[in-house]
Formats: sequence, C-alpha cells, structure tokens
Amino acid sequence: MSKVITSRSEDYSKWYIDIVKQANLADNSAVRGCMVIKPYGFAIWENMKSQLDQMFKDTGHVNAYFPLFIPKSFLSREAEHVEGFAKECAVVTHHRLMNAPDGSGVVVDPSARLEEELIVRPTSETIIWHTYKDWIKSYRDLPLLVNQWANVVRWELRTRLFLRTAEFLWQEGHTAHATREEAIEEAKQMQRVYAQFAEEYMAMPVIQGAKTANERFAGAEDTLTIEALMQDGKALQAGTSHFLGQNFAKAFDVKYLNENNKEEYVWATSWGVSTRLMGGLIMTHSDDQGLVIPPKLAPTQVVIVPIPKPGAEIDEAADKVMKALKANGITVQYDTDKKKRPGFKFAEHEMRGIPVRVGIGKRDLEKGVVEIARRDTGEKVQVPLDGSADYIAKLLDDIQKNLFDKAVKFREEKTTSVDNFDDFKDVISQDIPGFISAHWDGTSETELKIKELTKATIRCIPNDAEEEAGSCVFSGKPSSKRVLFAKAY
Amino acid sequence: MSKVITSRSEDYSKWYIDIVKQANLADNSAVRGCMVIKPYGFAIWENMKSQLDQMFKDTGHVNAYFPLFIPKSFLSREAEHVEGFAKECAVVTHHRLMNAPDGSGVVVDPSARLEEELIVRPTSETIIWHTYKDWIKSYRDLPLLVNQWANVVRWELRTRLFLRTAEFLWQEGHTAHATREEAIEEAKQMQRVYAQFAEEYMAMPVIQGAKTANERFAGAEDTLTIEALMQDGKALQAGTSHFLGQNFAKAFDVKYLNENNKEEYVWATSWGVSTRLMGGLIMTHSDDQGLVIPPKLAPTQVVIVPIPKPGAEIDEAADKVMKALKANGITVQYDTDKKKRPGFKFAEHEMRGIPVRVGIGKRDLEKGVVEIARRDTGEKVQVPLDGSADYIAKLLDDIQKNLFDKAVKFREEKTTSVDNFDDFKDVISQDIPGFISAHWDGTSETELKIKELTKATIRCIPNDAEEEAGSCVFSGKPSSKRVLFAKAY
Repeated sequence: MSKVITSRSEDYSKWYIDIVKQANLADNSAVRGCMVIKPYGFAIWENMKSQLDQMFKDTGHVNAYFPLFIPKSFLSREAEHVEGFAKECAVVTHHRLMNAPDGSGVVVDPSARLEEELIVRPTSETIIWHTYKDWIKSYRDLPLLVNQWANVVRWELRTRLFLRTAEFLWQEGHTAHATREEAIEEAKQMQRVYAQFAEEYMAMPVIQGAKTANERFAGAEDTLTIEALMQDGKALQAGTSHFLGQNFAKAFDVKYLNENNKEEYVWATSWGVSTRLMGGLIMTHSDDQGLVIPPKLAPTQVVIVPIPKPGAEIDEAADKVMKALKANGITVQYDTDKKKRPGFKFAEHEMRGIPVRVGIGKRDLEKGVVEIARRDTGEKVQVPLDGSADYIAKLLDDIQKNLFDKAVKFREEKTTSVDNFDDFKDVISQDIPGFISAHWDGTSETELKIKELTKATIRCIPNDAEEEAGSCVFSGKPSSKRVLFAKAY
Repeated sequence: MSKVITSRSEDYSKWYIDIVKQANLADNSAVRGCMVIKPYGFAIWENMKSQLDQMFKDTGHVNAYFPLFIPKSFLSREAEHVEGFAKECAVVTHHRLMNAPDGSGVVVDPSARLEEELIVRPTSETIIWHTYKDWIKSYRDLPLLVNQWANVVRWELRTRLFLRTAEFLWQEGHTAHATREEAIEEAKQMQRVYAQFAEEYMAMPVIQGAKTANERFAGAEDTLTIEALMQDGKALQAGTSHFLGQNFAKAFDVKYLNENNKEEYVWATSWGVSTRLMGGLIMTHSDDQGLVIPPKLAPTQVVIVPIPKPGAEIDEAADKVMKALKANGITVQYDTDKKKRPGFKFAEHEMRGIPVRVGIGKRDLEKGVVEIARRDTGEKVQVPLDGSADYIAKLLDDIQKNLFDKAVKFREEKTTSVDNFDDFKDVISQDIPGFISAHWDGTSETELKIKELTKATIRCIPNDAEEEAGSCVFSGKPSSKRVLFAKAY
C-alpha cells in the first residue's frame, strides 16, 4: 500500500487525521466544519449506534423524533442555556431563493423572511420541553423516558474530524420524572450505561465522575461524565449525563398532578454521546500502521487473504473457514481481488483495522495449516485449518480483552498523583501528560487559574474518589478529596 | 376509551388526523410544518427503516452520511434542480445570536453573516456529487452504491402530518455507474425493492410505472414510481427512483477513466422513500375504530388482556402464552394495568392497531380456552390455551395476507377503464374516484389541461401497460397504451 501515515511520535494530530482519511472513515466537506462520514466509518458508527440503542431500550427508553428547528425565543427561556449556545448556532432567516433581478444567479428572496428566526438545534432541551408540556399532565405520565437519534449543529470555529465538527450525529435522551431522587438516579444510570458501552464494546476505559460547576452543561444542576485518556495523554470527554433539576420544567411550565392531586414541576435529565466517540475509538487503540478496531465493533472482524491468489484449493479452504465463522456470528470477508499482491492487501487490511487476518497459502494447506495474524499485536501463528474457526472466535475475545487491558495499563501509567504545583506543572508539560490526581479547594477561581497557567482543566470529580484530608495543589487550602486534571480535547 | 375519531365517511381528512393523533403517532410542533414523531409512531417507522435498510444492504448498498447544509451555489449548478427546489428551502444566513443592545432579548448578530448562504438540504444530489468527484477516479471505483438516512427540509406551505411536512425523515440512495444501462437497471432494481417492501411488509399494493416528463424529479431523465391507492380513492406516490443520466456528473465534473484509459462522465441514480410511507400505511388499512398495522410492522403484535384483571391463574396462563409467542419471535405485551377496565383496554388497543388481542378470563380458563380477537376483521374465536401460540402465529400471517388482499380488491374495484372524457369527468368526480386507466396522447399540453379541468394527474405509465391502439381520452389523438390517472396526495 503506497499510503503512509505520519507516526504518532512525529506529529500526533497529523497521525490522527491521516488515520481518519486513509482508513476511509471521514473527510472534510465543502461546508466549513461539516464532515462526510464515509461508508467504512459509518459502518463502525452503525455498530456503536445499534449497541447503544439496545442498551437504551433495555433500560426502558423509547425513541422519538423532534424538529430540527428551534424558534429563537425558545432558546432564551432558560437563561444559562441561551448563554451556552447562542454564540455558535446556525440561524435560518429565510424560506425561499429567487433568481437575481440582474441575472447574476440565485439569491435569497428578501420577501421570504421568517417572522421569527429558527435555530438549527444545537441540542433539543427547549423544543422537547415545550412538547412535554402537552404530554405530561399527571403522575401517570411519568417517568417519560425518551431518546432521539439526530444531527445537531454547533458553529465551532476550530474543527477536527469526529472530535469537533459543526454538524455531528448523536443521541440525546430527555427524561421527565416525578421526583428529584428519581431524576438523579436516571442521570447516574445513564452514566453507567455509557461507561459500560465504552469499556465493554469500545474497549476504552473511562473514569466516571461529576463535572465542576464551571464545566457543567448550560442549564444543568449536575453534569456526570465519562472521561477517557487518549494516547497523547490528553483526556476526551466521551459522554455526559445531566441532572437538569426543574430548570426546563420551569422555563416551559411543565407541571404534573401528583397522587395527592397537587401540582408540581417535573424533574429532568438529558444525556448524550456523539460521533465524537469515533475519535475516542481511533485514538485509544490505533497505531502507526493504521486503525485498530475492537472486534465487537468491527464491521468486518476477519479477512481471509489467498496467497498468492485465489484458486480451487484455497477457495475451498476459505469457504470452509467462512462457513464456520459465519455460523459463529462472526463477520468475514474473502479478499479475492486478483490485481493486488498479498503484501499490499496485508497493509490495506492493517490500515482498516480488521482484527484478524487469515492467510491461506498452497504450501501451508499441504501441511493442513493456515496463518492467523492478529491486528492488535501483529503476532502470527500457524493453526490447523480444521478448528481454525474456533481458534479465531477465541482470538477475537482475546483481542477485545487485550485492547482494553492495554488501555487500562496505559492510563494507570499515565495517571500521576501530585501534591504541589511545581510537580503539577512538570507533569502537565510532559509530552504525554495524562491524568493528574490532585487536591483542589473547590473554587472556580482556583480551577480557572490553573487552566490559565497550564491549560489543564478538571476533567471530573471521580465517583469513587476517596475521602482524604489534603490541601489544594494550587492554593494550599483544605480539600477532602482528589480530583482529576488533564489537558483535554 | 373516551376518545372518538371522526368516521371516514363523515370527513376523511379529519379521520386521518384523528388517527395520527389519537393513536399517538405524531403531532404538530411549535415550528410551522414540522412534526414531532411520537414514540409509538417512531417505533413503526423504525421497523420500516430496519427492513428497508436490510433490503438495501442485500442489494449491495452501504450507508454513509453527508452534510445537512448545501452551499447555495451548489444548488444552481444543475439548472432544473434549482428550479425545482429554490422556492421552498430553509436558508441559513448567520452563525451567531447576541443580546439585543436595547436589552429586549436575543437577536441575530449582524456581524455573523455567512459569506455564502447555506441551504438546509431538500435532497442531497448536489453535495453528494460534489463529494463523488473526489471518490471516483477510475472504473475500479464504480459502481458506487451509497445510501443515506437523513432529515430533509422542503418549505411546503400546506402541510399534513406524515404526508407533507416541512421537515421529514427519509433515505436517499445515490449511486454512480460506468454505463447508462447499468444505471437504468439500478433505478429499476430500486423500484422493485420499494414495491416489494410496500407489498410484503406494508401490505400496501402498488403500481410500478414511470412518471411523465411533467412529473419527473428536478434533474432526472426518468423517474420511476410506486403508486398506491388510498381509501378515499386518491393516489399516493409512495417512493421514487430516478435515472439521472449524466446531469449531475456534468454539473459537478465527475469523470472516470474507463478500462481503455479514456475519460468519461459517470451515470447516476437516486431513489428515496420517506416518513410519508407512514401516511400510506395509515390510509391503506385503518378504519373508524383506529389504526390498523400489518403484523410485520407492528411494534407490538399481540396484546394479552386479563379479564377482568390480573391474578395468579390468569398471570400464569398469560406467562405461558407469552413465552411460547416470544420463542416464535412474536412481540407481545401483557396489559396488567389495574386501573382500566377490559372494555377500555380493548378500545385502546384497537385504536393502536395491535393485530391480535388475547383475552384471558377466569371462566374461560376453567374450560381451558382463551379468546382471540383479530384487529383487521374484528372476529373473535375461542381457542384452547394449549396451542394458542401456534394459532396466533398462523393468525398473524393470515392478517398480513388479508390486509394485502383487501387492499388489492379495493384497488381493483376502484380502477376504471375509461374511453371518453365525459366518463373521465364522471369517474373523477365521484366520492371515491380511484385510478382511471385511459389513453393519452403523450403531450404535456393534454396532461396539464386534464389536470386543470379535473385535478387528476397522470400517476404513471405502468411498467406492465399493454400495447393497445387507442385514442387519447381528451384530444382523440392516437395512443399506444393506457396510462393511470388519479387525484393524488
């Protein structure tokens, strides 16, 4: 394969973009900041989506669909919410084009100005809570557990494929509850669901915690997060789950009659993950040879390459292996392209991150064996043709586990407990800084000062942070637990 | 159930809206012309989508995702295309809001005007063909068989839930081919796929045919369609598949090197079905008691109602039936709500269109039987508890077939062969006019004149229209085959 990717050590950002482009995952489009998700990238996203969707349904949620557009006045109803999103939204002002009077082309028809501008949804709390006012009358209508798969637009200035794009795909759950406690438990449950998905399917270990007030979602009382560590030692916020209190219920006047026939405001959560997860997937596992995909999310889990090319005997052996794999629910592709040499194909499938490659050669077949290569470690072994499918099934599990273990090990190595600000600055200025576990005095002032000085932010207050008397790494003031700092995407 | 729906004979349009609202399928939103698809409606759409998606994949297509926004200049590249869509598109002109200087609220920030306006996609040919220029270099890159599931916006003035909305959900296939013949065959194949889906899953019989030049998609050389007949005798265009010739390839300069190393323009198709299918589904089968859903698309195929309420014996019997049904892949719900009487539940499940209802009562159980009611005919039978699951499995097949047969019979009864314009006017002015099969002279002039006089349009020139010498029903000029007229949605 003639395509070469920049190594991580040489230029991590370029390495990332090289992988996205050369593994045919996505590309920039003609519209600033908007991406095209290519078929191979979309197939991985579809696998993520279908697994997440099942997990949402298993926890009692249903899907629905709300309008793309939000009346401008809705955004303003919740004060912090509009503050958070007004600066980066796409505004629809007209509903018609016309031929320019001077024949110069097509222009906006000035007579087709909308009475009220429409915002392309950056998130749907406002339009959904406006709708919930009609749906919720009594305690019998609660809880309301709704999810939406949709595209959203946030007019970001600096964009990067998958990680930060003007338009992205996501899901947004919006639930309504009778009590504060139930809503808080829902927000926690969805954090757990996200963590489970990240770890079991993406093989991406995450820290579950709460955001500081500074880093909360605009309109939330509490934002729970899952934070992953990328190979360059920067953190990625991979999913968030918000306890919204009664903020949106009050902004949109959504009340219910409780069992005692008394009117009360409804309690809310919202939670979302997006195509940003694709960025996390890539940056957690991939290497200088290309993409690495955990078997549970790989569109093609096994590729069979005939060596040097297809032929009756090899085809027969390949067919046997394929049948056995498919019977096991494993996706397999037989690469019969006669115009490419095996070495070229190897590099190509490595670039695409296919977890297992099976080489079937004539000479090997005479000995009754095939060659099996795993993408994660590059190891190759010869395995008897008979029984190779069982070997592969087990190998896929091993790869899934190995990728997760490797990522956990990396995170452990790159998590540093720090007790003074000089050490903090030392660690954060390293090539691969990682997480810093340190005491913090709980003030936004300190948090912002540290960010200003080091670019590190508090990623979260971990759910499992132990009570520990200490003093703030910056101010020296007393602190009762450590929080997690990092530079972040 | 206190909700009552208007009967079809009283007011068909109101009946339709009543069903959509009272079966909880969809509702109007705060944004003019945009709908909220409610969880139950969305569950039906999800079933349609997942079946269609499988059929697209089985015919070699892959999914991808392209930007929501289209630069204004792109629309203008294909002359007919811009003509077709310019008058009804949502235009994004700004990318930021700000606080009004006078404190009156949030306003569009005039300094954040986009250099070039962006159109919210009404369909994606232009942005996709702009992208294909990068993807297609040689004959090896062809055919390119891509589909996208997306939301699109067409600023319609008169909207109706599902049938015509400003925003709707759809899929749009966009394929690129080396030869004219291959592209034409692709367009035909997708028409067949749509017809198969409509008939086998929606139980909605369709006529496959070609549109006249007048009714073609803006930018197409040929538009193939599937046309269904609704219960009010109006036609519904349920899906279209376009042969685009080289129009978009030329507009976006997409050429490939053929096997002889010669540059040629690429040939194209596009094809789509939308949430409009939900309207077709409703109007084909539903009745004055509410929604009727064909079993293959019903989110819940069977509901079990305990009579008069749950209890140990009934629960045990219900559990037995549920286990047997689930083992057969049948979706079942046990309605254990103690606050509603059985009669109320019956009406509710009828409204929701659940294909089969099983009533389990104490007295019946003593006789070892349960009562099974089918939604399509309302018939009830007593069936032994043992073996009831097998009975239901067969019954679901019967219902699916019966709904289709009934719709075919209705269409046959409401298709009239007409040979002079007086008869044409008689038939088209009936309460339930249906399809008119008549000779046409092939001119747009006649077509438009007939439309002006009767509101009937040529729905299609059926694929299976027989060669038959005749004279045009309007002009008397010679014609070689009959075409299909109808009033339409």
